[in-house]
Amino acid sequence: MAVHLGPNQYGKAENRLVTVSRNGSVHTLRDLTVSTSLRGDLAATHLTGDNSGVVPTDTQKNTVYAFAKEAPVGEIEEFALRLGRHFVGSFEQITGARVLIDEHGWGRIAANDHSFVRGSDEKRTTAVTIEGSQAWVVSGLRDLIVLKTTGSEFHGYPRDKYTTLPETNDRILATAVSAQWRFSSLDADWAKSFVEAREALLEAFASTHSLSLQQTLYAMGEAVLAARSEIAEVRLSLPNKHHFVVDLSKFGLANDNEVFYAADRPYGLIEGTVLRDDAPDPGLAWHTLPAF
Amino acid sequence: MAVHLGPNQYGKAENRLVTVSRNGSVHTLRDLTVSTSLRGDLAATHLTGDNSGVVPTDTQKNTVYAFAKEAPVGEIEEFALRLGRHFVGSFEQITGARVLIDEHGWGRIAANDHSFVRGSDEKRTTAVTIEGSQAWVVSGLRDLIVLKTTGSEFHGYPRDKYTTLPETNDRILATAVSAQWRFSSLDADWAKSFVEAREALLEAFASTHSLSLQQTLYAMGEAVLAARSEIAEVRLSLPNKHHFVVDLSKFGLANDNEVFYAADRPYGLIEGTVLRDDAPDPGLAWHTLPAF
Amino acid sequence: MAVHLGPNQYGKAENRLVTVSRNGSVHTLRDLTVSTSLRGDLAATHLTGDNSGVVPTDTQKNTVYAFAKEAPVGEIEEFALRLGRHFVGSFEQITGARVLIDEHGWGRIAANDHSFVRGSDEKRTTAVTIEGSQAWVVSGLRDLIVLKTTGSEFHGYPRDKYTTLPETNDRILATAVSAQWRFSSLDADWAKSFVEAREALLEAFASTHSLSLQQTLYAMGEAVLAARSEIAEVRLSLPNKHHFVVDLSKFGLANDNEVFYAADRPYGLIEGTVLRDDAPDPGLAWHTLPAF
Amino acid sequence: MAVHLGPNQYGKAENRLVTVSRNGSVHTLRDLTVSTSLRGDLAATHLTGDNSGVVPTDTQKNTVYAFAKEAPVGEIEEFALRLGRHFVGSFEQITGARVLIDEHGWGRIAANDHSFVRGSDEKRTTAVTIEGSQAWVVSGLRDLIVLKTTGSEFHGYPRDKYTTLPETNDRILATAVSAQWRFSSLDADWAKSFVEAREALLEAFASTHSLSLQQTLYAMGEAVLAARSEIAEVRLSLPNKHHFVVDLSKFGLANDNEVFYAADRPYGLIEGTVLRDDAPDPGLAWHTLPAF
Repeated sequence: MAVHLGPNQYGKAENRLVTVSRNGSVHTLRDLTVSTSLRGDLAATHLTGDNSGVVPTDTQKNTVYAFAKEAPVGEIEEFALRLGRHFVGSFEQITGARVLIDEHGWGRIAANDHSFVRGSDEKRTTAVTIEGSQAWVVSGLRDLIVLKTTGSEFHGYPRDKYTTLPETNDRILATAVSAQWRFSSLDADWAKSFVEAREALLEAFASTHSLSLQQTLYAMGEAVLAARSEIAEVRLSLPNKHHFVVDLSKFGLANDNEVFYAADRPYGLIEGTVLRDDAPDPGLAWHTLPAF
Repeated sequence: MAVHLGPNQYGKAENRLVTVSRNGSVHTLRDLTVSTSLRGDLAATHLTGDNSGVVPTDTQKNTVYAFAKEAPVGEIEEFALRLGRHFVGSFEQITGARVLIDEHGWGRIAANDHSFVRGSDEKRTTAVTIEGSQAWVVSGLRDLIVLKTTGSEFHGYPRDKYTTLPETNDRILATAVSAQWRFSSLDADWAKSFVEAREALLEAFASTHSLSLQQTLYAMGEAVLAARSEIAEVRLSLPNKHHFVVDLSKFGLANDNEVFYAADRPYGLIEGTVLRDDAPDPGLAWHTLPAF
Repeated sequence: MAVHLGPNQYGKAENRLVTVSRNGSVHTLRDLTVSTSLRGDLAATHLTGDNSGVVPTDTQKNTVYAFAKEAPVGEIEEFALRLGRHFVGSFEQITGARVLIDEHGWGRIAANDHSFVRGSDEKRTTAVTIEGSQAWVVSGLRDLIVLKTTGSEFHGYPRDKYTTLPETNDRILATAVSAQWRFSSLDADWAKSFVEAREALLEAFASTHSLSLQQTLYAMGEAVLAARSEIAEVRLSLPNKHHFVVDLSKFGLANDNEVFYAADRPYGLIEGTVLRDDAPDPGLAWHTLPAF
Repeated sequence: MAVHLGPNQYGKAENRLVTVSRNGSVHTLRDLTVSTSLRGDLAATHLTGDNSGVVPTDTQKNTVYAFAKEAPVGEIEEFALRLGRHFVGSFEQITGARVLIDEHGWGRIAANDHSFVRGSDEKRTTAVTIEGSQAWVVSGLRDLIVLKTTGSEFHGYPRDKYTTLPETNDRILATAVSAQWRFSSLDADWAKSFVEAREALLEAFASTHSLSLQQTLYAMGEAVLAARSEIAEVRLSLPNKHHFVVDLSKFGLANDNEVFYAADRPYGLIEGTVLRDDAPDPGLAWHTLPAF
C-alpha cells in the first residue's frame, strides 16, 4: 500500500492572554485568545518521529506571552503578523504559519480608571496566514447578535409536496453574525477598518427591508465593501434564529406579532460571499479557514 | 420496606419568550426565559400514576405565552407573581409554585427604532415562590463579569506544608458575579431596585481596596443593602477567575503585572450572605434555590 | 444600617485530577474533578480583610494533588472524607468542609493494558460534608441519559382553558438522570453501593410501565432504597426530554410513533425525594447542595 | 463600486431526528442530527429578494422528517445521498447540495427490548456533496476521546530562547479524535467501513509507540487506509490534551508519572492528511468542509 502525507499543520490553540498597560492611574486592558499553527518540511516527525524540525507548541505559547511584553501588542492584526513572521523567519523547516486571534471586549466601570466590566460575547477576530515572505490578513467578528422586529418578509418561494411554510410579509429577523473580510493589502488602518466595517454591518442589517435573509446578507457584505476600500471580499455566515409567532387563537387571543417563541434548533443557515469585481487573487488568505 | 414521598415539584423549564410592543414606529423588545414549578397534593401521580392533580407542564407553557398577551408583561417580578398566583389559585391540588425568570438585555441599533443588538451575556433574574396566599421574591443577576487591574492584595494567610502560594500586594481581581437578593416585602419598585442594586455591586467591586475576595464580597452585599431598604438579604457567589502573572524571567524579561495567563480551571469560589440584623424571617423565599 | 455576615464558604472548584497506578504492565486510570469548600470562623476576612484564618484555595488545590500521592485515592467517598477531615482537623478556624468529587469513566482499548477510551458523559458523584468530628455522605450520578420507546402513557390530567396537550397512551420517555442518595452511615461498601444503586435506577426506569414521569421517578427512588439498605434517601431530578411525533399527515404519511423531533427547550422538569420512613435525621448532609 | 456574489449556500441546520422501528417487541432506535444546504442559481434572492428559486429551509426540514418515514433511513451515508439527490433533482434552480449527518449512539438496557441508555458523546458523521448527477462521500467520527498512560515520548525538537519545555521519554498522550475519510467510490459497505475504520484508529493509537503526536496521527491515518480499500484519504484533527505531571517535590513527595493535572487550555492541535498515492481527484468532496 503506497500512501503519503498530505497537507498538515500543528500549533498551540487558545492561549489566553490578558495584558495591562498603565498611563499613570489610567489602565488599559486587552483580552485575547491566540492560536498559532505552523507548517513546512514536517514529513520526518510524521513518518519516523524525528522532531528536529518541530518547534514545540509549548515554545509557541511562550513566544506569544514573551512577545506581548517585548513590544506593545497593538492591533490584533499587527500582533498576529509579528508572531507569524517570527516563526517563519526563525526556523529553517517552518515555511508557513497561521495565527488566529480573538479579542474580547471590556468596558470601564465609572468608579475609577482600573475597573472593567465584560461586554457582550461578541469577538473581534483576525486570521493571518504567512507563507515565506508573503502575508494575508482576514479579519472579522463573531457572535454579534442582532434582531429586527419588523421590516422582514419571506414569500414567493417554490412549493412542493413537502412545503407547509406560510408566506409572511412581517416577521422577526434575528441572527448571530459571523463575518470574515479579506484585506487586499497589509497597508490598512486595522482599528478604523474594524470599527467602520462593523458599523456598516449593523447599519445594513437594520436598514435593509428584507425579502430574504440572503438579501440582507448581500446588503451587509456590500456595505462593508462600500465603507472600506481596502477590503476585497466579505464572507458571512448568518444563522436564521427563528422566532415563531405563538398560536394563541386556541385561547381566544389574537397575536399580532407580539408574542414569540424563540427556538434553539433547527435553525436556518445562510452563508455567502460578496466580493469586488477587481478583488485580487486570494492566495493563501483562506488557508484552512472555514469556508464561511 | 417502608418508604414515602418527600419534597417534590415539577414544571416546565426554560420557556423562551420574546415579546414586541409598539408605540407607533418605536418598538420595545423583551427577551425572557421562564421556568415554572408547581407543588401540592401530588402523591397520587407518584404512587399510582393517577394524574388528576397534575397540571401538565405543557399547560404551564401555554399559560406563560397566553399571559404575555393578556396583559403587559411588566417587570419580571410582576410577571412571575402573576403566573405563580394563577397556578396556585386555579387548581385545587396545587398549593405552591416557584417561577424563575431570566431577562436577557438588548440595546438599540441607531439606524431605526425597530432594530436591536444583543447586550452582554449578563441576565437579570427573579425567583418567586408562592405558598397558598403568601409570596416571596428573590431577584438578582448572573454572569456580570468584572475585573480590576489593581487595588487587590492577598496575604497574611495561614501556612502549612502544602502552602506554596506567594503573598501579593497587587494582583488582578476578576469574577463573574452571581447575586441573589431577598425582598422584605412585595411593595417594591422592581425596576429601580434592580438598577440601583446592580450599580451598588459594580461600585463596591471597583472601589473596595481588596485584601481578599471575601472582603469584596461583603462590601458588595453591604452596598446593595445600603442602596435599597426593601432588600433584606444578599447572597453572592464569586468565582475567583485567576489571572496568573506569566514568568518571563526565563526570557530575560521583567513582567511587572503586565502580561497574564487567564486560567479556566480550577478557580476559587467565594460564597457568602450579608443580611440586615432586622431581616424578616425568609419563609420559603429560598425554597429549592441554590444556597448561593 | 446594621448588617452582618450570614452563612458562607469558600474553596477551590474543579481541580482536574488524573492518576495512574501500575501493576506491572497493567495500568489503572482514575479521572476526577474535585471541589473543596471550607467554612468556620471567617468573619475577619469578610469584615477587615484579615486573612489569618483563610487557608488559601491554592493550598486546598495543592492538598488535593499531594493527597492523591500520599495514599491510594480509593473510592471517591473515601478520598472526599480524607480531604475534608484533613482541612477541619488541621486549621483551628476551619470547622467545616464540603468536598465534591465527580468521577469520569474510561474503558480499556483491547490492544494493550495502558490505553483507554472515554466512556459516556455520565459522572459518578459524591458530596461529603464535615462539621467538626461529624461527617455525612451523599453520592449519586449525573447525565445518565435513558430513553424508552414504549411503555409510557400520560392522561387523566386536569384541563383548563390553556390546556391543549392531547392525551397519549404510548409515547417516548427520555430523561437525563441526576440522582443523589444519602447514606445513613459511613460504614458502606461505596463501590458496590454505587454499582447496585445505578443498576436499580436503570432497571426501574426500563421496567416501570409509566403513567407519568413522576411515577417513574418514585419507582426509581424506591428501587435504590430496596437495593441498598445503607441508603436512607434518594433525590432525583429528571428533565422530560420531549420527543414529539412529527405530523406527517400533511404529506399523506401515517406516523405511528416512528418519526420524532427531539426538542431542546423547553423541557419538563420533574423533581422529587423518596425516603425511608425510618431515615435518620439528615443533619448537614445536604448543606448548600441543590435541593434536587 | 462593482461587486458581485461569490460562493454561497443555505439550508436548515441541526434537524434532530429520532426514529423507532419495531420487530415485534424488539425496538431499534436511531438518533440523528441532520443539516442540509443547497446551492445553485440563487443570485436573484441575494440581489433583489426574488425567492422564486429558494426552496425554504422549512421545506428542507419537512423533507428530512418525511423521508425518514417514506423508506428506512438506512446508513447515514445512504440517507444523506437520498436527501441530497432529491433536492438537486426536484428543483430546477438547485444544482448542488451538501448534507451533514451526525449519528449519536445508544446501547440497550438489559431489562427489555425497548429501553436504551445513551453511549458516549462520540458521533459517527457523514458529509455528502451532490453536484448535478455527481456525488461524493466523506465520513468519519468526532469526540472519540482516547488516552494512553505510557508509550509516548517527545524530544529532539529545536530550541530557541523561548524554549523551556523539558524533553520526556514517558508522558500521558490524550486526544479527542476528529477524523474524516473520503471514499473513492459510492459502492461501499458503509456500516462495515465505519466499524473497521474506527477500530483501526483505536488500534493504531494504542499500539504506536509515539515519538510525537504527528507520528501517531500518521499511523492512525495509514491504519484506516490499510483497513479499508475504498477509503482514499483521511484527515485528522488531534488536540493534544495536556496532562501535566504535578510537581510534588515541594511536599517531599516523588511523582513518577502518577499524579497529573488535566489542563483545559491552551492545548496542542495537530492536524494532517494521509492519502493513497493513487487517490482519485477529490472533486467537491471537501466543499465547504473544515480543512481538518
